[in-house]
Amino acid sequence: MDERTLISTYFAGRSTGRSDVVLGIGDDAAVLRFEPDWDLVVATDTIAEGTHFPAGIPARAVGHRALAVNLSDLAAMAAEPLWCSLALSLPAADPMWLEEFAAGFFALADRFGTALIGGDTVRGPLSATVTVQGRVRPGAAVPRTGARAGDGIWVTGNPGDAVAGRYLLDAAAGVPESVRATLLQRFLYPEPRVREGRALAALATAMLDVSDGLHDDIGKLMTASGSGAELDAGLLPLSAELRAAVAERAIECALTGGDDYELCFTAPAQATARLQEVAAAWTVPVTRIGTVVREPGIRWQHAGRVLTVPGSTFRHF
Amino acid sequence: MDERTLISTYFAGRSTGRSDVVLGIGDDAAVLRFEPDWDLVVATDTIAEGTHFPAGIPARAVGHRALAVNLSDLAAMAAEPLWCSLALSLPAADPMWLEEFAAGFFALADRFGTALIGGDTVRGPLSATVTVQGRVRPGAAVPRTGARAGDGIWVTGNPGDAVAGRYLLDAAAGVPESVRATLLQRFLYPEPRVREGRALAALATAMLDVSDGLHDDIGKLMTASGSGAELDAGLLPLSAELRAAVAERAIECALTGGDDYELCFTAPAQATARLQEVAAAWTVPVTRIGTVVREPGIRWQHAGRVLTVPGSTFRHF
Repeated sequence: MDERTLISTYFAGRSTGRSDVVLGIGDDAAVLRFEPDWDLVVATDTIAEGTHFPAGIPARAVGHRALAVNLSDLAAMAAEPLWCSLALSLPAADPMWLEEFAAGFFALADRFGTALIGGDTVRGPLSATVTVQGRVRPGAAVPRTGARAGDGIWVTGNPGDAVAGRYLLDAAAGVPESVRATLLQRFLYPEPRVREGRALAALATAMLDVSDGLHDDIGKLMTASGSGAELDAGLLPLSAELRAAVAERAIECALTGGDDYELCFTAPAQATARLQEVAAAWTVPVTRIGTVVREPGIRWQHAGRVLTVPGSTFRHF
Repeated sequence: MDERTLISTYFAGRSTGRSDVVLGIGDDAAVLRFEPDWDLVVATDTIAEGTHFPAGIPARAVGHRALAVNLSDLAAMAAEPLWCSLALSLPAADPMWLEEFAAGFFALADRFGTALIGGDTVRGPLSATVTVQGRVRPGAAVPRTGARAGDGIWVTGNPGDAVAGRYLLDAAAGVPESVRATLLQRFLYPEPRVREGRALAALATAMLDVSDGLHDDIGKLMTASGSGAELDAGLLPLSAELRAAVAERAIECALTGGDDYELCFTAPAQATARLQEVAAAWTVPVTRIGTVVREPGIRWQHAGRVLTVPGSTFRHF
C-alpha cells in the first residue's frame, strides 16, 4: 500500500466536519480560519509502543491514546480543541489494525469536535505523534506557574486506576472480572478532561494533567510556581475498584502510577464554593487533597504520620 | 539524561524571540497570539533515518532537514511561518549529536523567524516529526487544485542537484571537489523557498513543493487540478554541477530524483511579465518548463522526441 492510499483509505474525509477548515488533508498544508479574540494553543505528544504503552494492546486503544494524551494537554491549559494532525510510524500497513486504530482515534476526535487536518506516515516501530491546536480567550490559559500559598490542591477522577489497569493486562489472578474491566478501561481509554479543564479557566490558579504520577506532577506544579505542598494521602479519591484490585498498594498506585490523565490544579480557598457548584455538573469527582505552602518540597502525611514517596521520575534516556 | 534535562539543555530558550509567544516550552501546551485577518496554516512532516535521509549524515543536516521539509510545505501554500514544534525519536542522548542537531535546526528557524514552541522526545530509531504553524491572508493560500489549461508550468532552482548530492555521499570518483561540495550542500541543506512562495501568492494558480521528484509531483498537481501537462525536458534548468557530476543522466535526476524542495507552480500567461519582475529579486532562478493542457497525463518531450519517464512513486509500505 502506498502512503497516499493508506491516508485516503483510513484517514482522509473521516473527520468531523468543521466549517473553519478552509483546506484539509491532501494539500501541502491545511488552511484554517481562526476567529479573532482568541489565542492559539498548541501541544505535541508522542506515544511509542514499549515506552508509553505495552505491545499488544488493542489498535483502537492506541488510536484513542494518541489523541487523548494531547487533548489532555489542552485540557490542562483550559483550552478548547479545534484541529489535530497525526504522524504515524508503522511497522507494516495491516488493514485490520489501521481500521481499528482509526476507529479509536476518530471516535474521540468526533466527541470533542476535533478535525484531523493533516499528517504523515512512515515505516518504523509503532509510534504516533499528534499535534493539537486549540484556543483560549486571551489571559484565560491556566499555566503551571500560578499556585500561591494557601491555595487548595485538587485532583479530578480516581488516580491510580490506570496503572492498576496496566498491571491487570497481564496478571488478573484473584481480581473480579467487573473490577478488572473497569480498571482496564481506565488504562486503555483515558478520558481527557477537556470540559472540566475549560470550566476551570476562571477558577484554577495553576494546572497540569497527571501523566507521570500524581506525586511527581504535583512536584512539577509546585516547582513551576515556586511553592511547596502539604498533602494528605487519606484524602485521595481511591476508587473501590483500585482498593479491590491492589488492596494496601492503592495509595502507592495513586501517587506514583502515572497514565491517569486527570487534572491536578490549585484554587484559592475563596473559590471552593464556586468550584463545587461548577463540578456538580461533572460526571467525574473532584477532590481536595492538600494545600500550597511557601516552603518548597512535596510533603505527604497519612493518618497523622509522614508518608515517604520513593523517587519515581520516568526516564526515557 | 532525563527528558526534561535534554529539552532544557538543547531546545528550551534557544529559539528566536517572538512577541506573539505568550507561553512557550515548559507548560502543557504553548499559547500564541494570533493576529486577526489571517488564516492559520499547519503542516506536519516526519523524516526518518534510512527512509528520508541516509544513516550517518551530519546531525546538523538532520536538524536542518527536519524543519526545512516543513517550511517547504508552508512555502508551497504561500504562507509565512510563525511557530513550530518538534517530536524527536533518538536511539541515545549523545550530547555532541544533539548540540549539532539543535544548531542546524535553530540556524534555519532563526533565519525564517520561526519559534520552537514545544515538542516531545522519545527513545527509538532516529526520526523527527515537526509541525509548523504559519499564516496567510484569507484566500491567498495557493492550493494544488487551481491549474488551468494554458497556464505555464514553472519550477524554482535546479532540480536534480539534490539527488546527485545524495549519490555523491558515497561515491565521488571522478567528480571535481567543488562540484561535489555544491551538490552535497543541495542534498544536505535544502533551502525552503519561503520568500519565493509568499511572493507567488498573487501570481500562482497552483503550487506544491518538489519532494518526490519533479515528474511525480507535476502529476500530483495536474491530478489535483483535473488537468494534464506538456513539458519540454530541454527547458529544464540543469545546473552545471549536475551535468558535470552525472553527464547524460542529468535529465533523469531532475525528473525522478526527489529531495529538491523547490517550488513547482502554474501561472497564467498574462502573469509572466509580473512573475519575471518579482523573480528578478530572487537569488534562485525560476524557469518555465511546460504548459497545462486539458487532456490528463504528463507528457515530456526532448529535442522534438517523446521522452518516457519510468514510474517512480516512492513507496514506504
